This record gives sequence, structure tokens and C-alpha cells, in this order.
Amino acid sequence: MYAKVDEEVLDELREVVGDDGVVAGEDQLEPYSHDETPQLVFRPEVAVRPRDSSEVSRIVTLANSRRIPLTPRGGGTGLSGGALPVFGGILLSFERMNRIKEIDTMNLMAVVEPGVITADLESEVANCGLFYPPDPVSSDSCTLGGNVAECAGGPRAVKYGVTRDYVQGLEVVFPDGNIAKLGGKLLKDVTGYSLLDIIVGSEGTLAVVTQAVLRLLPLPGHKVDLLIPFDNVQTAIETLSGVMRTGIIPSTMELMEGKSLKVCEAYLKREIPFSDAAIHILVQLDGNRREDVTREYEIVGELVLDKGALDVMVAEDKSTQERVWEPRKNLGDALKESGNLFVRDDLVVPPSQIPTLIDEVRRIEDKYKVDIHCFGHVGDGNIHVDIEGDSPPGEKTELIHDLYEVTLKLGGSITAEHGIGFVKKSWLAMGLAQPEIDLMKRIKASFDPNNILNPGKIFE
Amino acid sequence: MYAKVDEEVLDELREVVGDDGVVAGEDQLEPYSHDETPQLVFRPEVAVRPRDSSEVSRIVTLANSRRIPLTPRGGGTGLSGGALPVFGGILLSFERMNRIKEIDTMNLMAVVEPGVITADLESEVANCGLFYPPDPVSSDSCTLGGNVAECAGGPRAVKYGVTRDYVQGLEVVFPDGNIAKLGGKLLKDVTGYSLLDIIVGSEGTLAVVTQAVLRLLPLPGHKVDLLIPFDNVQTAIETLSGVMRTGIIPSTMELMEGKSLKVCEAYLKREIPFSDAAIHILVQLDGNRREDVTREYEIVGELVLDKGALDVMVAEDKSTQERVWEPRKNLGDALKESGNLFVRDDLVVPPSQIPTLIDEVRRIEDKYKVDIHCFGHVGDGNIHVDIEGDSPPGEKTELIHDLYEVTLKLGGSITAEHGIGFVKKSWLAMGLAQPEIDLMKRIKASFDPNNILNPGKIFE
Repeated sequence: MYAKVDEEVLDELREVVGDDGVVAGEDQLEPYSHDETPQLVFRPEVAVRPRDSSEVSRIVTLANSRRIPLTPRGGGTGLSGGALPVFGGILLSFERMNRIKEIDTMNLMAVVEPGVITADLESEVANCGLFYPPDPVSSDSCTLGGNVAECAGGPRAVKYGVTRDYVQGLEVVFPDGNIAKLGGKLLKDVTGYSLLDIIVGSEGTLAVVTQAVLRLLPLPGHKVDLLIPFDNVQTAIETLSGVMRTGIIPSTMELMEGKSLKVCEAYLKREIPFSDAAIHILVQLDGNRREDVTREYEIVGELVLDKGALDVMVAEDKSTQERVWEPRKNLGDALKESGNLFVRDDLVVPPSQIPTLIDEVRRIEDKYKVDIHCFGHVGDGNIHVDIEGDSPPGEKTELIHDLYEVTLKLGGSITAEHGIGFVKKSWLAMGLAQPEIDLMKRIKASFDPNNILNPGKIFE
Repeated sequence: MYAKVDEEVLDELREVVGDDGVVAGEDQLEPYSHDETPQLVFRPEVAVRPRDSSEVSRIVTLANSRRIPLTPRGGGTGLSGGALPVFGGILLSFERMNRIKEIDTMNLMAVVEPGVITADLESEVANCGLFYPPDPVSSDSCTLGGNVAECAGGPRAVKYGVTRDYVQGLEVVFPDGNIAKLGGKLLKDVTGYSLLDIIVGSEGTLAVVTQAVLRLLPLPGHKVDLLIPFDNVQTAIETLSGVMRTGIIPSTMELMEGKSLKVCEAYLKREIPFSDAAIHILVQLDGNRREDVTREYEIVGELVLDKGALDVMVAEDKSTQERVWEPRKNLGDALKESGNLFVRDDLVVPPSQIPTLIDEVRRIEDKYKVDIHCFGHVGDGNIHVDIEGDSPPGEKTELIHDLYEVTLKLGGSITAEHGIGFVKKSWLAMGLAQPEIDLMKRIKASFDPNNILNPGKIFE
């Protein structure tokens, strides 16, 4: 079906990106063969590291004319196998396209290459008094190109939205090699269909992003984190919806269960305060002035204590804040290390349905005798569900089916921010109606008639 | 090419929507034959007024099977002819689908039918302490369905974004009659390509929207309007970019030139304070607490006076605020009444380029000896350009060409919020590269292979 990467192709690639831009050989290709998805390995035939969009265009043109699969890869932090070359072929790595090209303080925009690490942009713009809000938990190692491809979210989505809300312009290479500039430093633009908005979140299957124009905000001068333990999950979550009704929108509302805290204690080798609580909620408030943030945390603090919170720990300085966030930031790695993790899922429901979803997850946990950790972005209805256990494969499929059935029944969706990628494509037909899937396939063919761009993803 | 609406079709339509749902006859169809675009009239063969999505589906199926053009219409306030049935056929009016079906105060979402007037939603949710930010200036008469179709913006986009940023879910009818639910009461969702996001702003050419789930915010408890006259346009605009750098984001920053104020004085039959100034800037600040808003307007006031503002008029109560906004809200009608308006354009550039754009517009005004009014959303780079005059048609085309050339050279786009519709389709190839247009046409064919949905729009 697809052509192979032969010596002639390798020579052509070397001509485009230089000898040091071509990575071949089993050992050298190992780092490009997996991401953060459990149990998935696919080796590319070659990895190439272009330096600019014209090189990307030449590589795409070559792959398209020879029918070689081409898989773009950012930081390799994905949890749905989206950046893995499931049909081999050429892996397109953006590690040499990692420049922040401009921080435009007049228009509050940044122009970046796809290989920029998300946290690097955040800290660079902060030096200019500006703020790039999207903050996937992997922000220290994921890239902005990957964020655009997956429409990455993160804890701050509850107040600030997701990656899509900040992408104002893209430079992309279409599968035929054409380079296009979509949008720009523009806050409004309705010229034709929004190709930009369908490319965001298309998991690298429609076009290769070679540059992005990202909207920035003024940096909130102050932030405070509140760690709030509860001895009852339902009470905790109902209390949080009361917070939103005060008119205060926290920048994050994260959830961690007691049993996940225990896993983190073992991993971090330190005690976590109130780790015997049923649940921890991490509420972050931000604003321009210290007194405003203080006033808000006092209101939130009183409200949650009134409703039965065990305590409210206030973290105002950076080192305490980092300590308070440490368990949440490390939970993914802690669970990975702790044993036989076989699913890292990513469900989303209307926020008011979170208590019901968690009840149902407990029921499923009992039914299949597995260990399920629910954690994440309770403020925006997005719960990560990491499952440990060793039930037979057939039962795993039934378990996931049950999980998705419950999620969809509650008005939810089967992926909030991780993407369908490789691991959920067999479930797509459960999450969407067939006419929608058929339409998406026609759209895919409109962009990429030869199906060379990240094949084997999203669709079966 | 297209079939006509004959007696058999009329009977079938009556069966779907009832006798009182079918509008025929020249006089009765007159209101459906124009929108707010100057000099455009296209009469439908019939107008139908469905009551729910299943009726819409049956109408769409009928139109598709018989190859009859179908044009959806909201409030008829468009400025690009987007809702006009340029090939006749069936006009689909949503005047009987105008219910606010739910205001969900737990999830901060509203569920609406497409015929709801935008300002009606705004006031209904305000009664629940909630806020729907998108505010096209026609909000008293435009509909949410039209807003979704055009991805409507408005003055508050500078702080709150555009319609796309609030559409979380859509129920749509595809051209084959299938009804689909896209998204939902979800703040994150990356299940497959975002059909929702390509339908927003597609000007009714890809699918018929029959219901929308719109995100709401807590209602800011206080707002204040500052009317700031300057005797120099450049100084005014440079001063405004200084406002953004204080970390304060105004909810609106509107611009009106002195000569437009004179037109408004004649239309409103009253004096407008400081109407001899070169320019008026209208800055709105909002927030949860009076003292915060007061503090912010004092900072802004000092800053602009320091940079040469002639005065700062503060409007804190509702009736003064309405009076301050009255010229801006009525400028469109005032210009329409005042004479031979022949273009209402809608340009957008990076905000920092607004002074250069206005300089260039003045040059074009001189060159073609016409009268150009620039006004609108200076905060987000979106300037409306209304042109009065009676130069011959050839010169008008040259003039528009010059205008777009300048806009594009400044990194802008040829339409910010009005859409391409009918009036700009001959300019699309100037605003976009051919591969993008070709791709958009393939996407159109993916949705609507028979080209029955709002044909004659966007593309030639």
C-alpha cells in the first residue's frame, strides 16, 4: 500500500535537510518510536529534522509523490499514540524548528516554530509581562506544534480555554507541498471557511504546522493556590460549583483522590499533608493585584470551609506553590512507575455531571476488579482516568466500553484533550455518528487524497 | 441548473410546516428579499418557517433531492448579502424557532434555537446573573443562528472574543437531511475533526444550524464607559495601545471620527459633546466590583489625559451609558440615510497597524474623491469603512482593490466579521491563495455535493 524508504529516498532527504538532519539506524530511531502512551512502539524507517518550512515542503512533496507515510512529531508526550509512525515511513521531527521568532508586545502575539517547548514560551513571554495560558501538564516537555495538533488543554482551561482559543494564525504545509498562511495577528477574520480551526486538533492528519501566531494576555501579577482537602468526593465537587456562582472564576480547579495521593507519596518519598482525605481540590486564583486575589481567596476559603472542607492551605509564594502542585504534576509518572497501568483515559462531561461520572467509575472499578485513579480538571468537566490491573484483554475492552457508555450518556465525549490518535480509533464510532465520521473522512481526502499524512490515526 | 419551486413542492412544504409556515406571493416575500447590504435584492420563490429540527431536516431533504437552492436566514441584518437567495429557491426562515430552551446555571451554558434575537439572550441570562459576551452592533435585531453562521464579532471582542469562542455545541442538519449533534455542554472535546468549528463562520453553506449550546460567563457586576475625544487620530490610537500595556483589558475600545459624529448629530437631531474633535474613543471597562472598575478608569483616564486627550467623560449609570453609545449604535443607520452609501466594508489588521491603515484610507479617499467613514473596533484591529460617493463603477472596483491591497499588505484580512457572502466573493482570490480556495471548495463538496445550501456565496 505504501512505498518504503529506500537509499534513493534517504539521499534525497539528506539533500534537503543535510546529513545531520537525517536520523537512521535502529538505536538512533528508538527515541522516535514511542510516546507516553502505555505499551505502544512503532519504529519509523527514518526520522528527519527540517530547519524551516521550505524544507518541510520539500519533504512533504517527496513523501506525497512516492506514497511514503509521513508522521509529524513534537515532544513525544502524547497519550493517544498520535505521533507514532504506525506504518513506518518518514518521521518529521521539529527539534530544529524551535525558535520563538517574535514576541509582539504591541499586538500581544507571539510567533513561534512548532518545536518550541510550551513552558519555554510561557517563561519568555512572562519576561515581557505577558501570559500564554494553555498549560498541558506536560508543558515542560511538550511542544507548541503538538499542542496545536491535539488542541491541548490543561488545568487553566476552566478560566482561559484551550489551545484553539489562542491560535490566531498558522503557517502550514499541505500534503501537496503547498505552503499556506492562515489567519495572522488578527483577532477577527472570517475570510472563507476557517481552515485554521479544522487544522487545530486534527492530530497532524490534515496539514503540517510550520509556524503559529499565538495570542497573549497581560500577565496576571498575582496568583495564589488553595489546597483544599475534603473527606467526601461528592461534597467537594458540589462545593466547587458554588465557587463559580460567586462570579469568581478560578484559573484552575484540579482534583486528586486520596489513593492517588498515596501513590504520589511513595513516588516523591515525602509526606503529603492531608493525604488521608478522600479528595484534594487545588484551586488557583489569579489577578492583577494582590488585594484582589486575597479578597477572592478569602471568599472561596470561607465558602468551602462552610460546606465541609477539612482545611484550606494557602500557597502564596512560588516555592510553596511548586510544592503544592508537585503531587499533581508527578501523578502521571507516579502511576506509570507504580505498576501495571494499561489505560490512561481522558473523559469529559458537563461539569455538573462529574459527581455522577465518578460514582459510575467506582461501580466499574468494582465490577472489573481493577484500580482506577480519577484526577484532573474538575472545573472544566475533564477527568483523567488511569486504570491499573491485569484483567484479560476481552474484559479490558468491555471495561472501556462501559466507561464510554456512561460518559456519553451523561452528555460527554470520549476524549477531552488527548485526542483519538491510534489508541481510540476503534472507539470513534461509539463517540460519533456514522454520517459525521463519513464526513470527516471526506474532509481528510480533501486535504490529503493519498493519505500520506499521519495515516492510521483517528479513523480505522 | 437548479429546479424551480412548483405547486408540488409547495404542497410538500405545506405538509411539513403547515399552511401558515409557507410564505408565497410577491408582497409577502418582499421582507425576505434584502438584508442590510446596500443595493441588493434577490427574491426567493418561497419562504418556509419550520418549527423544529425534524421539519428542517424534511425541508433540506426535499430541496436536496429536487436540486432546489435553500438559503437559511436569521434576522436579515447581514452586510454581505449572505442570507439572500441569489438563485431563488426556498428561503428557510427561523422566526418560529426562537426559543431559549435552557439556561443552565450549573454548567454556565444556554441552549438556544437559531431564531433567538441576540439581545434577548443577553438580557435573559443577565436575569440569572450570567453574561453572553458576543455583541454585534445589530444585537437588537440579529439572531444567534446568523451570528453562528457569520462568526459574528462586535465591540466586546477585544476582551471577550467572537461568537466562535462561545459555541460549545451545535445541532445541525447536513445537506443530505441527517441531523447531527456536535459538541455539547463541554469545555473541551477533541473527538475527531472539529466539524463544529468549520461550520461556525461558514455562512450557512455547509449545514443548517438548528440549535446551539453557548457558553456563558458570570455577569460582571459593574461597567463604566469613558468617552474620550482627541484632536489627533494617530495620538488617540497610540494612546490606546498604551492602555493594553497597563494590564487592563477594556471590554470595548470603539472609534468614531469627527465627520461621522456630525452625520450622527444630523440623524439624532441633538448635539454630541466634543463633536468638533478629530476622533472619539469609547472605552468600556467592566468588573465584579465598583471599586475595581473605578480604579481602572482612573488609571485609564490619567493615562489618556497625559497623552493629550481633550477630556474624559465618565458614564456610570445606565441612561448616561446609553446616551454615550447612541451615536455609535446609530452610525450605520445615519450613514445609510445620509446619501449615496455604496460600500460598507469591514477590514481587519493587526491592531498596531490601525494608524497606518487609517492614513492609507485618507489617501484613497483623496484619490477617488469619495467620503470614507472609518469607525468601529479599534481595540481588535477591525475597522468598518463606509464609503459614500458616486464615482463610476469601474472606479469603485479600483477603489476597493486599493483598500484591500493596503489591508493585506499590513497583514490584515478583507473581512473581520461581516463575511464574504455575495458581495465579496469576487474578491476572495485577492484575500486567499488559490490552493486554499480550492481546498475550501472541496470541503464544500464534502458537505454539500449538490451545492443546494446557500449557493452563490463565498465562491464565484
